[in-house]
Amino acid sequence: MQGEPTIGDVFGEMIRDAYAVATGIGPRPLVGGRLPRPVIEIIERDDGLVNGAPAQHYLDPPEAWQPYDHRAVDRVEGRVLDVGVGAGRIALHLQARGVPVTGLDTSEGALRVCRHRGVRDLVWGTVDEHADVGPRYDTFLLLGNNVGLFEGRDRAPAFLAALAALARPGATIIAHGTDPYGTTDPVHTGYHELNRRRGRLGGQLRLRLRYRMLGTGWFDYLVCSVDELAELVHGTPWRLVDVDDADRPYYLATLRLR
Amino acid sequence: MQGEPTIGDVFGEMIRDAYAVATGIGPRPLVGGRLPRPVIEIIERDDGLVNGAPAQHYLDPPEAWQPYDHRAVDRVEGRVLDVGVGAGRIALHLQARGVPVTGLDTSEGALRVCRHRGVRDLVWGTVDEHADVGPRYDTFLLLGNNVGLFEGRDRAPAFLAALAALARPGATIIAHGTDPYGTTDPVHTGYHELNRRRGRLGGQLRLRLRYRMLGTGWFDYLVCSVDELAELVHGTPWRLVDVDDADRPYYLATLRLR
Repeated sequence: MQGEPTIGDVFGEMIRDAYAVATGIGPRPLVGGRLPRPVIEIIERDDGLVNGAPAQHYLDPPEAWQPYDHRAVDRVEGRVLDVGVGAGRIALHLQARGVPVTGLDTSEGALRVCRHRGVRDLVWGTVDEHADVGPRYDTFLLLGNNVGLFEGRDRAPAFLAALAALARPGATIIAHGTDPYGTTDPVHTGYHELNRRRGRLGGQLRLRLRYRMLGTGWFDYLVCSVDELAELVHGTPWRLVDVDDADRPYYLATLRLR
Repeated sequence: MQGEPTIGDVFGEMIRDAYAVATGIGPRPLVGGRLPRPVIEIIERDDGLVNGAPAQHYLDPPEAWQPYDHRAVDRVEGRVLDVGVGAGRIALHLQARGVPVTGLDTSEGALRVCRHRGVRDLVWGTVDEHADVGPRYDTFLLLGNNVGLFEGRDRAPAFLAALAALARPGATIIAHGTDPYGTTDPVHTGYHELNRRRGRLGGQLRLRLRYRMLGTGWFDYLVCSVDELAELVHGTPWRLVDVDDADRPYYLATLRLR
């Protein structure tokens, strides 16, 4: 198929290059073999939508963070699992504060960058894999819009069960999400309708990431309202105890182990 | 096919949005229905490579141009056809200098932005279509890497014949290109080899552009060395009279009508 990517560690390659552009460590992507090229994350949706976004924010220092990220890290207690540690911006900040934090990611390349930047405790895998062998945590951070990892009605119970298996009594999940329903853009409202017709949540995005020659397979990533989140949490070992929506459409949801 | 774009005026939609982001004129693309999204041009190559590049440069004022663009506009004489006028940055600059300039583009959306920005003389179509009915010109500008429009061995003679049909005696073509062979990146050197094996010039890229829901069909766009350019020009109504490669790997080639 013309133009089809090779399946691989898209996120890791992209983070490696973004790190190289930001620091000069490692070869940078070049235009014409000479000029540095900005590193862009490319996200395809299954209806043909494609968006590009500069990758630099994965490396942002705390001064450049959005306010909700600061409020999220101020809420952590005890031992922390940073789910989807990425390039380590949150884990590094917690570590510097003396907070015991483990960074989890499915991208080996991202973990290499984390290691190089000084994140000490890293785990490669999914929360399910980590639940079989990992230690226990007091706080789970799902930042960078990682409510997305709930995926939808099928996956959310198993995902939350895996976090419960990793949880100490009284543990919390602090999850960053975005309410997708404020838009009037037909590209998005039409997709929400299409999703509902096929029995999915409106903002249950079917995506793949691409970077240079690599692509991921298609996967679900959830963008949902607080009401939808509450519905997904209902009947799991967690309950929704707080919603901070000071930066609407973004929110921080706090779940507590029952 | 999952994730396939709709064929449409990719470039025009992108330029319209980049103009909206730059000026506040017209609706801007938003993240979460609220925050402006940077406008990124997405370019797919037929081997699966994808690159994103911020679109803002199409609107850059002269202060932000690369040096070769300034040297190119300083070379124009008489009546000018700006081939691939884009968002009009070059045409506006020439117009302000009192140079008679026509902007040609195949993108209706780009021409609407040009019109809104004040470019007075615009033509929608290809050089071939314009040659049937258009006036005659002294200078043809192919900037923004538009040596690419030569496409390859098949298209170059017809493209140059169309420009000759539009030319007054003594006319010149000032064309901006990039030598692609300075790289050691296997993603590119491997593609050059693949191209040669299939009888194409090494840098004869098979591309499509994508923006949001839209894509172009696959088309050829040529990135070639000066030697390859000279070979393509040989036997046409034009001769290569000057090469300015002060900003290698970029160059400005000047062709003169025989």
